Amino acid sequence: MHPTRERIIETSAELFRRQGYSATGIKQIVTDAQAPFASLYHFFPGGKEELGAHAIRTSGALYEQLIPAMFDPAPDLPTAVRSFFAGAAERLRETDYADACPIATVALEVSSSSEQMRQACADVFESWIQAGAERHTRAGIDPHTARQLTIGMLAALEGAFVLARAQRTTEPLEIAGEMAARAVEAALTPKHPKTDRPRTVT
Amino acid sequence: MHPTRERIIETSAELFRRQGYSATGIKQIVTDAQAPFASLYHFFPGGKEELGAHAIRTSGALYEQLIPAMFDPAPDLPTAVRSFFAGAAERLRETDYADACPIATVALEVSSSSEQMRQACADVFESWIQAGAERHTRAGIDPHTARQLTIGMLAALEGAFVLARAQRTTEPLEIAGEMAARAVEAALTPKHPKTDRPRTVT
Repeated sequence: MHPTRERIIETSAELFRRQGYSATGIKQIVTDAQAPFASLYHFFPGGKEELGAHAIRTSGALYEQLIPAMFDPAPDLPTAVRSFFAGAAERLRETDYADACPIATVALEVSSSSEQMRQACADVFESWIQAGAERHTRAGIDPHTARQLTIGMLAALEGAFVLARAQRTTEPLEIAGEMAARAVEAALTPKHPKTDRPRTVT
Repeated sequence: MHPTRERIIETSAELFRRQGYSATGIKQIVTDAQAPFASLYHFFPGGKEELGAHAIRTSGALYEQLIPAMFDPAPDLPTAVRSFFAGAAERLRETDYADACPIATVALEVSSSSEQMRQACADVFESWIQAGAERHTRAGIDPHTARQLTIGMLAALEGAFVLARAQRTTEPLEIAGEMAARAVEAALTPKHPKTDRPRTVT
Protein backbone atom coordinates (compact mmCIF):
# COMPACT_ATOMS: atom_id res chain seq x y z
CA MET A 1 0.00 0.00 0.00
CA HIS A 2 1.24 3.53 -0.79
CA PRO A 3 2.53 5.14 2.44
CA THR A 4 0.54 8.36 1.95
CA ARG A 5 -2.65 6.39 1.29
CA GLU A 6 -1.97 4.31 4.37
CA ARG A 7 -1.33 7.43 6.48
CA ILE A 8 -4.57 9.02 5.30
CA ILE A 9 -6.57 5.91 6.22
CA GLU A 10 -4.92 5.53 9.62
CA THR A 11 -5.35 9.20 10.48
CA SER A 12 -9.01 9.08 9.44
CA ALA A 13 -9.63 5.94 11.48
CA GLU A 14 -8.12 7.62 14.54
CA LEU A 15 -10.15 10.83 14.08
CA PHE A 16 -13.42 8.97 13.40
CA ARG A 17 -12.88 6.84 16.50
CA ARG A 18 -12.34 9.87 18.72
CA GLN A 19 -14.76 12.46 17.32
CA GLY A 20 -16.94 10.68 14.80
CA TYR A 21 -17.35 10.98 11.05
CA SER A 22 -19.33 14.20 10.63
CA ALA A 23 -17.11 16.27 12.93
CA THR A 24 -14.00 15.24 11.01
CA GLY A 25 -13.25 17.45 8.03
CA ILE A 26 -11.14 16.51 5.05
CA LYS A 27 -8.86 19.43 5.81
CA GLN A 28 -8.14 18.05 9.29
CA ILE A 29 -7.45 14.60 7.84
CA VAL A 30 -4.87 15.76 5.30
CA THR A 31 -3.28 18.13 7.80
CA ASP A 32 -2.94 15.47 10.49
CA ALA A 33 -1.77 12.90 7.94
CA GLN A 34 0.76 15.39 6.53
CA ALA A 35 -0.55 14.66 3.07
CA PRO A 36 -1.17 17.03 0.15
CA PHE A 37 -4.87 17.93 -0.14
CA ALA A 38 -5.08 16.57 -3.70
CA SER A 39 -3.72 13.19 -2.62
CA LEU A 40 -6.98 12.43 -0.83
CA TYR A 41 -9.02 12.58 -4.04
CA HIS A 42 -6.20 10.87 -5.92
CA PHE A 43 -6.35 7.83 -3.64
CA PHE A 44 -10.08 8.08 -2.91
CA PRO A 45 -11.95 9.36 -5.95
CA GLY A 46 -15.18 8.86 -4.00
CA GLY A 47 -13.98 11.41 -1.45
CA LYS A 48 -14.68 11.33 2.27
CA GLU A 49 -17.32 8.61 2.04
CA GLU A 50 -15.03 6.18 0.22
CA LEU A 51 -12.22 7.01 2.64
CA GLY A 52 -14.66 6.50 5.52
CA ALA A 53 -15.48 2.98 4.37
CA HIS A 54 -11.76 2.13 4.11
CA ALA A 55 -11.08 3.57 7.57
CA ILE A 56 -13.92 1.51 9.06
CA ARG A 57 -12.59 -1.71 7.51
CA THR A 58 -9.02 -0.95 8.59
CA SER A 59 -10.07 -0.26 12.19
CA GLY A 60 -12.23 -3.36 12.15
CA ALA A 61 -9.36 -5.62 11.07
CA LEU A 62 -7.03 -4.06 13.65
CA TYR A 63 -9.41 -4.42 16.58
CA GLU A 64 -10.41 -7.92 15.53
CA GLN A 65 -6.92 -8.99 16.60
CA LEU A 66 -7.98 -8.29 20.19
CA ILE A 67 -10.30 -11.31 20.06
CA PRO A 68 -7.61 -14.02 19.70
CA ALA A 69 -5.24 -11.93 21.85
CA MET A 70 -7.68 -11.91 24.77
CA PHE A 71 -9.55 -15.20 24.26
CA ASP A 72 -6.91 -17.68 23.19
CA PRO A 73 -4.59 -17.48 26.24
CA ALA A 74 -7.48 -17.51 28.76
CA PRO A 75 -7.95 -20.68 30.87
CA ASP A 76 -11.68 -20.81 30.08
CA LEU A 77 -14.37 -18.91 28.19
CA PRO A 78 -16.01 -17.02 31.11
CA THR A 79 -12.57 -15.83 32.22
CA ALA A 80 -11.88 -14.67 28.66
CA VAL A 81 -15.13 -12.69 28.56
CA ARG A 82 -14.42 -11.04 31.91
CA SER A 83 -10.83 -10.21 30.84
CA PHE A 84 -12.08 -8.72 27.59
CA PHE A 85 -14.40 -6.29 29.38
CA ALA A 86 -11.79 -5.54 32.05
CA GLY A 87 -9.25 -4.70 29.33
CA ALA A 88 -11.76 -2.42 27.61
CA ALA A 89 -12.48 -0.68 30.92
CA GLU A 90 -8.78 -0.17 31.60
CA ARG A 91 -8.18 1.26 28.14
CA LEU A 92 -11.13 3.63 28.56
CA ARG A 93 -9.86 4.89 31.91
CA GLU A 94 -6.31 5.30 30.59
CA THR A 95 -7.51 7.42 27.67
CA ASP A 96 -9.76 9.66 29.78
CA TYR A 97 -12.87 7.88 28.40
CA ALA A 98 -11.99 8.53 24.77
CA ASP A 99 -10.95 5.18 23.30
CA ALA A 100 -13.84 2.78 23.07
CA CYS A 101 -15.15 1.06 19.93
CA PRO A 102 -13.40 2.36 16.80
CA ILE A 103 -16.52 2.20 14.61
CA ALA A 104 -19.62 2.58 16.83
CA THR A 105 -19.85 6.38 16.60
CA VAL A 106 -19.58 6.26 12.82
CA ALA A 107 -22.01 3.33 12.65
CA LEU A 108 -24.70 5.34 14.44
CA GLU A 109 -23.95 8.48 12.43
CA VAL A 110 -24.07 6.92 8.97
CA SER A 111 -26.41 3.93 9.23
CA SER A 112 -29.30 5.90 7.77
CA SER A 113 -27.32 8.13 5.41
CA SER A 114 -24.44 6.25 3.74
CA GLU A 115 -25.05 2.77 2.40
CA GLN A 116 -21.35 2.36 1.60
CA MET A 117 -20.22 3.08 5.15
CA ARG A 118 -23.14 1.27 6.77
CA GLN A 119 -22.14 -1.84 4.83
CA ALA A 120 -18.53 -1.47 5.96
CA CYS A 121 -19.69 -1.28 9.61
CA ALA A 122 -21.99 -4.29 9.13
CA ASP A 123 -19.12 -6.30 7.63
CA VAL A 124 -16.81 -5.39 10.52
CA PHE A 125 -19.38 -6.36 13.15
CA GLU A 126 -20.01 -9.63 11.31
CA SER A 127 -16.28 -10.44 11.22
CA TRP A 128 -16.03 -9.77 14.97
CA ILE A 129 -19.08 -11.95 15.61
CA GLN A 130 -17.58 -14.81 13.61
CA ALA A 131 -14.22 -14.52 15.37
CA GLY A 132 -15.95 -14.48 18.76
CA ALA A 133 -18.33 -17.31 17.93
CA GLU A 134 -15.38 -19.45 16.86
CA ARG A 135 -13.92 -19.15 20.39
CA HIS A 136 -17.27 -20.18 21.86
CA THR A 137 -17.62 -23.26 19.66
CA ARG A 138 -14.06 -24.29 20.55
CA ALA A 139 -15.22 -24.30 24.18
CA GLY A 140 -17.88 -26.86 23.26
CA ILE A 141 -20.87 -24.60 22.63
CA ASP A 142 -23.03 -25.38 19.60
CA PRO A 143 -22.64 -22.95 16.67
CA HIS A 144 -26.11 -21.38 16.98
CA THR A 145 -25.74 -20.64 20.69
CA ALA A 146 -22.13 -19.55 20.13
CA ARG A 147 -23.30 -16.92 17.67
CA GLN A 148 -26.05 -15.71 19.97
CA LEU A 149 -23.71 -15.44 22.96
CA THR A 150 -21.20 -13.48 20.88
CA ILE A 151 -23.85 -11.07 19.60
CA GLY A 152 -25.10 -10.64 23.17
CA MET A 153 -21.58 -9.99 24.39
CA LEU A 154 -20.84 -7.49 21.61
CA ALA A 155 -24.14 -5.68 22.19
CA ALA A 156 -23.40 -5.47 25.93
CA LEU A 157 -19.90 -4.16 25.20
CA GLU A 158 -21.01 -1.52 22.69
CA GLY A 159 -23.81 -0.28 24.90
CA ALA A 160 -21.60 -0.24 27.98
CA PHE A 161 -19.16 1.97 26.04
CA VAL A 162 -21.97 4.46 25.32
CA LEU A 163 -22.94 4.65 29.00
CA ALA A 164 -19.35 4.61 30.28
CA ARG A 165 -18.18 7.45 28.05
CA ALA A 166 -21.19 9.62 28.93
CA GLN A 167 -21.09 8.86 32.66
CA ARG A 168 -17.29 8.75 32.93
CA THR A 169 -17.28 5.55 34.89
CA THR A 170 -16.31 2.00 33.98
CA GLU A 171 -19.20 0.60 36.05
CA PRO A 172 -21.31 -0.22 32.96
CA LEU A 173 -18.42 -2.25 31.48
CA GLU A 174 -18.05 -4.23 34.70
CA ILE A 175 -21.77 -4.95 34.89
CA ALA A 176 -22.13 -5.75 31.18
CA GLY A 177 -19.06 -8.01 31.31
CA GLU A 178 -20.47 -9.91 34.26
CA MET A 179 -23.84 -10.31 32.50
CA ALA A 180 -22.14 -11.62 29.34
CA ALA A 181 -19.86 -13.96 31.34
CA ARG A 182 -22.82 -15.41 33.25
CA ALA A 183 -24.68 -16.01 29.99
CA VAL A 184 -21.66 -18.02 28.82
CA GLU A 185 -21.52 -19.90 32.13
CA ALA A 186 -25.20 -20.78 31.81
CA ALA A 187 -24.58 -22.14 28.30
CA LEU A 188 -21.65 -24.23 29.57
CA THR A 189 -23.59 -25.62 32.56
CA PRO A 190 -25.10 -29.09 31.98
CA LYS A 191 -28.86 -28.77 31.84
CA HIS A 192 -31.08 -30.04 34.67
CA PRO A 193 -34.40 -31.13 33.15
CA LYS A 194 -36.35 -30.20 36.28
CA THR A 195 -35.26 -26.59 36.51
CA ASP A 196 -34.28 -25.77 32.95
CA ARG A 197 -36.79 -24.04 30.78
CA PRO A 198 -35.54 -24.08 27.22
CA ARG A 199 -36.36 -20.95 25.34
CA THR A 200 -35.54 -20.04 21.79
CA VAL A 201 -34.98 -16.58 20.49
CA THR A 202 -37.37 -16.07 17.61
CA MET B 1 -42.36 27.62 27.15
CA HIS B 2 -42.30 29.91 24.11
CA PRO B 3 -43.67 27.99 21.10
CA THR B 4 -40.72 28.93 18.85
CA ARG B 5 -38.22 27.85 21.51
CA GLU B 6 -40.13 24.59 21.94
CA ARG B 7 -40.22 24.01 18.17
CA ILE B 8 -36.45 24.61 17.89
CA ILE B 9 -35.73 22.10 20.67
CA GLU B 10 -38.07 19.45 19.28
CA THR B 11 -36.72 19.83 15.75
CA SER B 12 -33.14 19.58 17.03
CA ALA B 13 -33.94 16.50 19.09
CA GLU B 14 -35.45 14.83 16.03
CA LEU B 15 -32.47 15.73 13.79
CA PHE B 16 -29.89 14.67 16.38
CA ARG B 17 -31.66 11.34 16.89
CA ARG B 18 -31.68 10.59 13.16
CA GLN B 19 -28.36 12.00 11.92
CA GLY B 20 -26.35 12.95 15.00
CA TYR B 21 -25.13 16.27 16.35
CA SER B 22 -22.22 17.13 14.06
CA ALA B 23 -24.10 16.48 10.84
CA THR B 24 -26.92 18.79 11.92
CA GLY B 25 -26.34 22.43 11.03
CA ILE B 26 -28.01 25.40 12.69
CA LYS B 27 -29.41 26.43 9.32
CA GLN B 28 -31.19 23.09 8.95
CA ILE B 29 -32.58 23.39 12.47
CA VAL B 30 -34.12 26.84 12.00
CA THR B 31 -35.38 25.94 8.52
CA ASP B 32 -37.05 22.73 9.70
CA ALA B 33 -38.40 24.47 12.80
CA GLN B 34 -39.71 27.36 10.66
CA ALA B 35 -38.00 29.76 13.04
CA PRO B 36 -36.13 33.00 12.26
CA PHE B 37 -32.36 32.43 12.33
CA ALA B 38 -31.86 35.07 15.05
CA SER B 39 -34.37 33.35 17.34
CA LEU B 40 -31.93 30.49 17.91
CA TYR B 41 -29.36 32.77 19.53
CA HIS B 42 -32.11 34.71 21.27
CA PHE B 43 -33.36 31.59 23.04
CA PHE B 44 -29.96 29.87 23.25
CA PRO B 45 -27.20 32.45 23.75
CA GLY B 46 -24.74 29.55 24.04
CA GLY B 47 -25.60 28.53 20.47
CA LYS B 48 -25.73 25.00 19.14
CA GLU B 49 -24.06 23.45 22.19
CA GLU B 50 -26.57 24.93 24.64
CA LEU B 51 -29.42 23.94 22.33
CA GLY B 52 -27.89 20.47 22.08
CA ALA B 53 -27.97 20.01 25.85
CA HIS B 54 -31.64 21.09 25.96
CA ALA B 55 -32.53 18.73 23.11
CA ILE B 56 -30.82 15.83 24.91
CA ARG B 57 -32.74 16.49 28.14
CA THR B 58 -36.05 16.90 26.29
CA SER B 59 -35.57 13.61 24.40
CA GLY B 60 -34.51 11.93 27.62
CA ALA B 61 -37.65 12.98 29.47
CA LEU B 62 -39.87 11.95 26.56
CA TYR B 63 -38.34 8.49 26.16
CA GLU B 64 -38.28 7.91 29.90
CA GLN B 65 -42.06 7.67 29.71
CA LEU B 66 -41.60 4.40 27.80
CA ILE B 67 -40.33 2.76 31.00
CA PRO B 68 -43.58 2.97 33.01
CA ALA B 69 -45.59 2.51 29.80
CA MET B 70 -43.90 -0.83 29.07
CA PHE B 71 -43.08 -2.09 32.57
CA ASP B 72 -46.08 -1.18 34.69
CA PRO B 73 -48.78 -3.10 32.79
CA ALA B 74 -46.60 -6.24 32.35
CA PRO B 75 -47.58 -9.35 34.37
CA ASP B 76 -43.99 -9.83 35.58
CA LEU B 77 -40.51 -8.34 35.21
CA PRO B 78 -38.98 -10.77 32.66
CA THR B 79 -42.06 -10.30 30.45
CA ALA B 80 -41.64 -6.53 30.76
CA VAL B 81 -37.98 -6.76 29.70
CA ARG B 82 -38.82 -8.94 26.70
CA SER B 83 -41.67 -6.61 25.68
CA PHE B 84 -39.41 -3.59 25.95
CA PHE B 85 -36.86 -5.05 23.53
CA ALA B 86 -39.60 -6.37 21.22
CA GLY B 87 -41.15 -2.89 21.11
CA ALA B 88 -37.79 -1.34 20.30
CA ALA B 89 -37.25 -3.90 17.52
CA GLU B 90 -40.67 -3.21 16.04
CA ARG B 91 -40.10 0.55 16.09
CA LEU B 92 -36.71 0.08 14.41
CA ARG B 93 -38.19 -2.06 11.64
CA GLU B 94 -41.09 0.33 11.10
CA THR B 95 -38.75 3.30 10.68
CA ASP B 96 -36.38 1.51 8.28
CA TYR B 97 -33.76 1.16 11.04
CA ALA B 98 -33.64 4.88 11.80
CA ASP B 99 -35.34 5.35 15.18
CA ALA B 100 -33.33 3.83 17.98
CA CYS B 101 -32.00 5.63 21.06
CA PRO B 102 -32.60 9.40 20.85
CA ILE B 103 -29.31 10.33 22.50
CA ALA B 104 -26.75 7.55 21.90
CA THR B 105 -25.33 8.98 18.66
CA VAL B 106 -24.86 12.39 20.28
CA ALA B 107 -23.45 10.79 23.44
CA LEU B 108 -20.69 9.07 21.46
CA GLU B 109 -20.03 12.17 19.35
CA VAL B 110 -19.70 14.66 22.18
CA SER B 111 -18.49 12.70 25.21
CA SER B 112 -14.91 13.79 24.64
CA SER B 113 -15.60 17.25 23.23
CA SER B 114 -18.51 18.97 25.02
CA GLU B 115 -18.73 18.78 28.78
CA GLN B 116 -22.14 20.47 28.75
CA MET B 117 -23.69 17.91 26.40
CA ARG B 118 -21.85 14.96 27.94
CA GLN B 119 -23.35 15.91 31.31
CA ALA B 120 -26.82 16.15 29.76
CA CYS B 121 -26.41 12.62 28.33
CA ALA B 122 -25.09 11.31 31.65
CA ASP B 123 -28.09 12.80 33.49
CA VAL B 124 -30.54 11.28 31.02
CA PHE B 125 -28.96 7.82 31.31
CA GLU B 126 -29.02 8.14 35.09
CA SER B 127 -32.72 9.07 35.10
CA TRP B 128 -33.51 6.06 32.90
CA ILE B 129 -31.47 3.80 35.18
CA GLN B 130 -33.32 5.05 38.25
CA ALA B 131 -36.71 4.62 36.59
CA GLY B 132 -35.79 1.09 35.49
CA ALA B 133 -34.26 0.12 38.83
CA GLU B 134 -37.45 1.23 40.60
CA ARG B 135 -39.42 -1.35 38.56
CA HIS B 136 -36.91 -4.03 39.54
CA THR B 137 -37.10 -3.25 43.26
CA ARG B 138 -40.91 -3.31 43.09
CA ALA B 139 -40.56 -6.89 41.82
CA GLY B 140 -38.69 -7.76 45.01
CA ILE B 141 -35.07 -7.35 43.86
CA ASP B 142 -32.69 -5.59 46.25
CA PRO B 143 -31.72 -2.03 45.23
CA HIS B 144 -28.07 -2.82 44.40
CA THR B 145 -28.94 -5.75 42.14
CA ALA B 146 -31.85 -3.77 40.67
CA ARG B 147 -29.47 -1.04 39.60
CA GLN B 148 -27.00 -3.51 38.12
CA LEU B 149 -29.71 -5.35 36.18
CA THR B 150 -31.02 -2.07 34.80
CA ILE B 151 -27.56 -0.91 33.72
CA GLY B 152 -26.97 -4.30 32.10
CA MET B 153 -30.31 -4.09 30.30
CA LEU B 154 -29.67 -0.54 29.11
CA ALA B 155 -26.17 -1.45 27.91
CA ALA B 156 -27.54 -4.45 26.04
CA LEU B 157 -30.25 -2.30 24.47
CA GLU B 158 -27.91 0.50 23.40
CA GLY B 159 -25.36 -1.90 21.93
CA ALA B 160 -28.03 -3.93 20.17
CA PHE B 161 -29.23 -0.70 18.54
CA VAL B 162 -25.71 -0.07 17.19
CA LEU B 163 -25.49 -3.57 15.70
CA ALA B 164 -29.10 -3.62 14.49
CA ARG B 165 -28.88 -0.30 12.66
CA ALA B 166 -25.59 -1.25 10.96
CA GLN B 167 -26.67 -4.80 10.07
CA ARG B 168 -30.30 -3.91 9.29
CA THR B 169 -31.69 -6.77 11.32
CA THR B 170 -33.49 -6.88 14.65
CA GLU B 171 -31.65 -10.07 15.61
CA PRO B 172 -29.30 -8.25 18.06
CA LEU B 173 -32.32 -6.77 19.88
CA GLU B 174 -33.93 -10.18 20.23
CA ILE B 175 -30.72 -11.74 21.54
CA ALA B 176 -29.89 -8.83 23.86
CA GLY B 177 -33.46 -8.78 25.19
CA GLU B 178 -33.32 -12.50 25.93
CA MET B 179 -29.95 -12.10 27.69
CA ALA B 180 -31.29 -9.24 29.82
CA ALA B 181 -34.51 -11.11 30.61
CA ARG B 182 -32.60 -14.20 31.70
CA ALA B 183 -30.38 -12.09 33.96
CA VAL B 184 -33.58 -10.82 35.62
CA GLU B 185 -34.95 -14.37 35.89
CA ALA B 186 -31.72 -15.51 37.56
CA ALA B 187 -32.01 -12.68 40.08
CA LEU B 188 -35.62 -13.63 40.82
CA THR B 189 -34.83 -17.34 41.21
CA PRO B 190 -34.33 -18.49 44.81
CA LYS B 191 -30.70 -19.40 45.33
CA HIS B 192 -29.57 -23.03 45.70
CA PRO B 193 -26.48 -23.09 47.94
CA LYS B 194 -25.02 -26.12 46.15
CA THR B 195 -25.01 -24.67 42.63
CA ASP B 196 -24.92 -20.96 43.28
CA ARG B 197 -21.59 -19.24 43.18
CA PRO B 198 -22.03 -15.72 44.49
CA ARG B 199 -19.96 -13.21 42.64
CA THR B 200 -19.74 -9.50 43.15
CA VAL B 201 -19.02 -6.95 40.52
CA THR B 202 -16.04 -4.96 41.67
